[in-house]
Amino acid sequence: MEPKSFKWFNDYLSPDEGHIHGIKDILYTKQTKYQQMEIMQTGSYGRCLVLDGKMQSTEKDEFIYHEILVHPALLTHPNPKKVFIVGGGEGATLREVLRHKSVEHVLMVDIDQEVVEACKKHLPEWHQGSFDDKRVELRYLDARKYLEETDEIYDVIIIDISEPVEEGPAYLLYTKEFYGIVNKRLSPEGTISLQAGTTAMHSLLCLSSVYQTIKTAFPIVCVHEAYIPSFGLPWGFITASKRNDPMKFTIEEIDNAIKKRIKGTLKYYDGETHISSFHLAKHIRKSMQEYDKIIEDNAPIFTYH
Amino acid sequence: MEPKSFKWFNDYLSPDEGHIHGIKDILYTKQTKYQQMEIMQTGSYGRCLVLDGKMQSTEKDEFIYHEILVHPALLTHPNPKKVFIVGGGEGATLREVLRHKSVEHVLMVDIDQEVVEACKKHLPEWHQGSFDDKRVELRYLDARKYLEETDEIYDVIIIDISEPVEEGPAYLLYTKEFYGIVNKRLSPEGTISLQAGTTAMHSLLCLSSVYQTIKTAFPIVCVHEAYIPSFGLPWGFITASKRNDPMKFTIEEIDNAIKKRIKGTLKYYDGETHISSFHLAKHIRKSMQEYDKIIEDNAPIFTYH
Amino acid sequence: MEPKSFKWFNDYLSPDEGHIHGIKDILYTKQTKYQQMEIMQTGSYGRCLVLDGKMQSTEKDEFIYHEILVHPALLTHPNPKKVFIVGGGEGATLREVLRHKSVEHVLMVDIDQEVVEACKKHLPEWHQGSFDDKRVELRYLDARKYLEETDEIYDVIIIDISEPVEEGPAYLLYTKEFYGIVNKRLSPEGTISLQAGTTAMHSLLCLSSVYQTIKTAFPIVCVHEAYIPSFGLPWGFITASKRNDPMKFTIEEIDNAIKKRIKGTLKYYDGETHISSFHLAKHIRKSMQEYDKIIEDNAPIFTYH
Amino acid sequence: MEPKSFKWFNDYLSPDEGHIHGIKDILYTKQTKYQQMEIMQTGSYGRCLVLDGKMQSTEKDEFIYHEILVHPALLTHPNPKKVFIVGGGEGATLREVLRHKSVEHVLMVDIDQEVVEACKKHLPEWHQGSFDDKRVELRYLDARKYLEETDEIYDVIIIDISEPVEEGPAYLLYTKEFYGIVNKRLSPEGTISLQAGTTAMHSLLCLSSVYQTIKTAFPIVCVHEAYIPSFGLPWGFITASKRNDPMKFTIEEIDNAIKKRIKGTLKYYDGETHISSFHLAKHIRKSMQEYDKIIEDNAPIFTYH
Repeated sequence: MEPKSFKWFNDYLSPDEGHIHGIKDILYTKQTKYQQMEIMQTGSYGRCLVLDGKMQSTEKDEFIYHEILVHPALLTHPNPKKVFIVGGGEGATLREVLRHKSVEHVLMVDIDQEVVEACKKHLPEWHQGSFDDKRVELRYLDARKYLEETDEIYDVIIIDISEPVEEGPAYLLYTKEFYGIVNKRLSPEGTISLQAGTTAMHSLLCLSSVYQTIKTAFPIVCVHEAYIPSFGLPWGFITASKRNDPMKFTIEEIDNAIKKRIKGTLKYYDGETHISSFHLAKHIRKSMQEYDKIIEDNAPIFTYH
Repeated sequence: MEPKSFKWFNDYLSPDEGHIHGIKDILYTKQTKYQQMEIMQTGSYGRCLVLDGKMQSTEKDEFIYHEILVHPALLTHPNPKKVFIVGGGEGATLREVLRHKSVEHVLMVDIDQEVVEACKKHLPEWHQGSFDDKRVELRYLDARKYLEETDEIYDVIIIDISEPVEEGPAYLLYTKEFYGIVNKRLSPEGTISLQAGTTAMHSLLCLSSVYQTIKTAFPIVCVHEAYIPSFGLPWGFITASKRNDPMKFTIEEIDNAIKKRIKGTLKYYDGETHISSFHLAKHIRKSMQEYDKIIEDNAPIFTYH
Repeated sequence: MEPKSFKWFNDYLSPDEGHIHGIKDILYTKQTKYQQMEIMQTGSYGRCLVLDGKMQSTEKDEFIYHEILVHPALLTHPNPKKVFIVGGGEGATLREVLRHKSVEHVLMVDIDQEVVEACKKHLPEWHQGSFDDKRVELRYLDARKYLEETDEIYDVIIIDISEPVEEGPAYLLYTKEFYGIVNKRLSPEGTISLQAGTTAMHSLLCLSSVYQTIKTAFPIVCVHEAYIPSFGLPWGFITASKRNDPMKFTIEEIDNAIKKRIKGTLKYYDGETHISSFHLAKHIRKSMQEYDKIIEDNAPIFTYH
Repeated sequence: MEPKSFKWFNDYLSPDEGHIHGIKDILYTKQTKYQQMEIMQTGSYGRCLVLDGKMQSTEKDEFIYHEILVHPALLTHPNPKKVFIVGGGEGATLREVLRHKSVEHVLMVDIDQEVVEACKKHLPEWHQGSFDDKRVELRYLDARKYLEETDEIYDVIIIDISEPVEEGPAYLLYTKEFYGIVNKRLSPEGTISLQAGTTAMHSLLCLSSVYQTIKTAFPIVCVHEAYIPSFGLPWGFITASKRNDPMKFTIEEIDNAIKKRIKGTLKYYDGETHISSFHLAKHIRKSMQEYDKIIEDNAPIFTYH
């Protein structure tokens, strides 16, 4: 097989490894107040969003990431009415949340207004008009500060932001202190969901430390995973809850819940996907258990260094 | 993150996508009678074997591929004594088969003597001396021809060869006719196992057609998968049997069988890995079921064209 | 040194060699009737024009290409009044021609109106308003057909088109028959100038065959060269004339002519540059002399095949 | 055109630009006491020597570099008998020096014995047995220290080492103080020659500062250049002399001197090459003249930073 493209986007996973995409065009570039944003047209995955040189999601496979981030958390909660989304600028996390008939109100908070507005305009296949849904409130502010100051209580909180692998303020949304704040803003059956970095063998530091950190704040913490083709990587997610354990759900229970509670047809997630996603390979579980570092406000993790 | 290497191996998945590896050295190159062989030292995965420009396996992650190829087939068989391996030149498939206490005889057949001998010499971490085990017979010949002519009966047959994505004789080991021959050489509880190409979304043609083809010859056919880090891809395997269904095994049954029947400690495979591997995401199952092409001796499949 | 860019334009010189540019943005893409056009923002050379995947010229170094293409031809002619430009869509060849005080009329003919109009709009540093000069006439048509049918006579004809290395109609502007037509449309002191492909050692086929072909139509044919940084290659040009020999000009004569006849200051070309450019290394001259193929309407050359 | 190789050597010229080579094999790698050494088989240029990730010379085009480094210095000297070579581990500089019938003694000094011995063994096309010539003395020591302590006087000194672009001891062989030492060890007609980095537009800092530095020690200092295909760059050389000016030689004088004084046939250098090489484009001369930094033992230059 020979490459056809003469323009390439190189997504380095480490200094010695990368996943590369032939690109047809760069449709949008913007240096926002917080990050470098680009929308590219790739040869294999349609349009994609790139922030600070890292692939975020693509037209062809974003359904995998967003379905597995949202549905396990909402379906294993008995009746989620109020949902809080941190980040998720593309609007696809919002789109999946809104499919749940039980949901009455969603507050989405993103710090980067420029990214959200560019996604609204240039990535309509992602949000599919979700920002116009009457149940949605969209605010541009610091999510942690909001949660510290509000009296609101949510059933599900979904944190859809970059993993804390490099220096930067994102790691303050991955600390023990932050998960303590989140816990206080959840109802008794409250559940959270977030992405936690790759589950590829050599890069389990991030996932393992986020896992150990969330265990300080929640009694039930489950790692699950999905392969994201455009990343060239399997991706790890964490669903944590005060009361509901995703591991206890059978294929049939998930399939029935989808039928009853979700509008439209899912492409990635169903009962069998649930079982596959929440059971992990032996070496991943071993890494998670052996790891003993907790991320704290004054103790970030730094990978790749 | 910035790349450190100045020599790279580009493994193209399609004309518009690739997985790239910084390389430190090329330790061995040989144009054999059948293929171009190279052993490289990579920055992230140690040594690796490359055939005709495609990564075959690496020092650091070959355990994933070889454990998931071998153990489900042997453990879901009640008492495998005679095993036949097609291909598997690195000797790591053989190594995993030999861990099973029940195994009394293994015949390994590879068509390319030059590759096997170079692996024996340069990849000792793969075979770990397995070629010297008294239970092993190694022969260099055409596996299909052997199976057509022999009277021997095997409990498990493992087919560890390149998938039939391009022109070349390998596809004659992936046809309806071939699986018919294989079936005749299996004992009543007989099981086969093979690799069947990636399960990544955009490349399900190969997996789906192999799946449909094997269904013509076996009543029980299960696709399972494992993410192979050095490929940047999840990989599909098929375990098919005359009588034993891997989907019916519980976590505890697999864990108990490992404890009783396998020497040493596995790194990748256990009961929970088994459950994760044999349950597939919805879109993969959909592709497998919708596909209706059977590979026949006179009807190969060609992907990427 | 380590690369900083994560988007790259790969300009392959051959299947085993390339020159690569980190790109910041793709400012414009268009599939015109004739070719794929792109304007990119590179990290090292500012904006650049790419046609069918090949770098044409960049903001930072286009002065080299355009000065050496235009000025030797016009300065070694005693009094060029009427100039005909074939191609040169960026408008920079036109810009350099218009610097000559003697020039009274320039007809520029390009077959691809979409490229010229995009360059007018997006590459103002190239043309610098030249298209608005009252001496300029711009027409979109087939240059060869025009020259065959017109009665006009020109003092200098500059052919600024892609070299005939691949299939395509461009080679009909590089044949023996075409140079015969050109000769007839030139005044008695008439001179032509054109680019003829790289002078890099391993790729002298194109240059040598164009050289031999032009010798069939002109008594004086000089190859000269300039290194084009963004190509990573030295580039060959040919100045041919009915009467005037560029090799006979001294440094002082060129410097005086520049002072007297050209407006503004040149950055690349002067008397010493002239001497350097028109004297070639031994192995290039050897290749040119040994080559014996003439390009004809029915006998194109094909390199890289 | 599409790339055929799947292994590439990326030679970065700057963080945003590189020249890439498809490689077939890595024939030799060694971390010596001083540098990382590799011999690769490239697709386009045969074998090549790479030190610390930078291409040094290749089988197919090393003749250009070594002829232009050696012959102008020796031919513009009336009768060079004793020659001192600093570096030049491949032995090709030595090979070209030995072609001169007048040469009676050559001392070659290289600090890295491991590199020289590997080149002797693996690059026979470079040295062609030169190390066995009875006129040659080869020593492994610090060239500067040797020159400071010796009483020997040389007619020509050739400095064939890496340019001083990065930190490292090489820059101590590029300082004002070093050229003062060199001057003292030269006979009254004494001449030196050295490589001084690329002459490509954007990277003239190194060349210009070496030029200005040598002017502090020699009355005649000439920059000349040659395009090195495998570098993708034109390369700058400096020939400096106490008395003989290369710019005063005519084509005929060089051609006659070659005929009389050199054994065998040159491929790159002759009278016309000399004229082309020693005349530079306007922007290069401008950069050289405007630059005013002198490299001193306590004041290195650092490019790319």
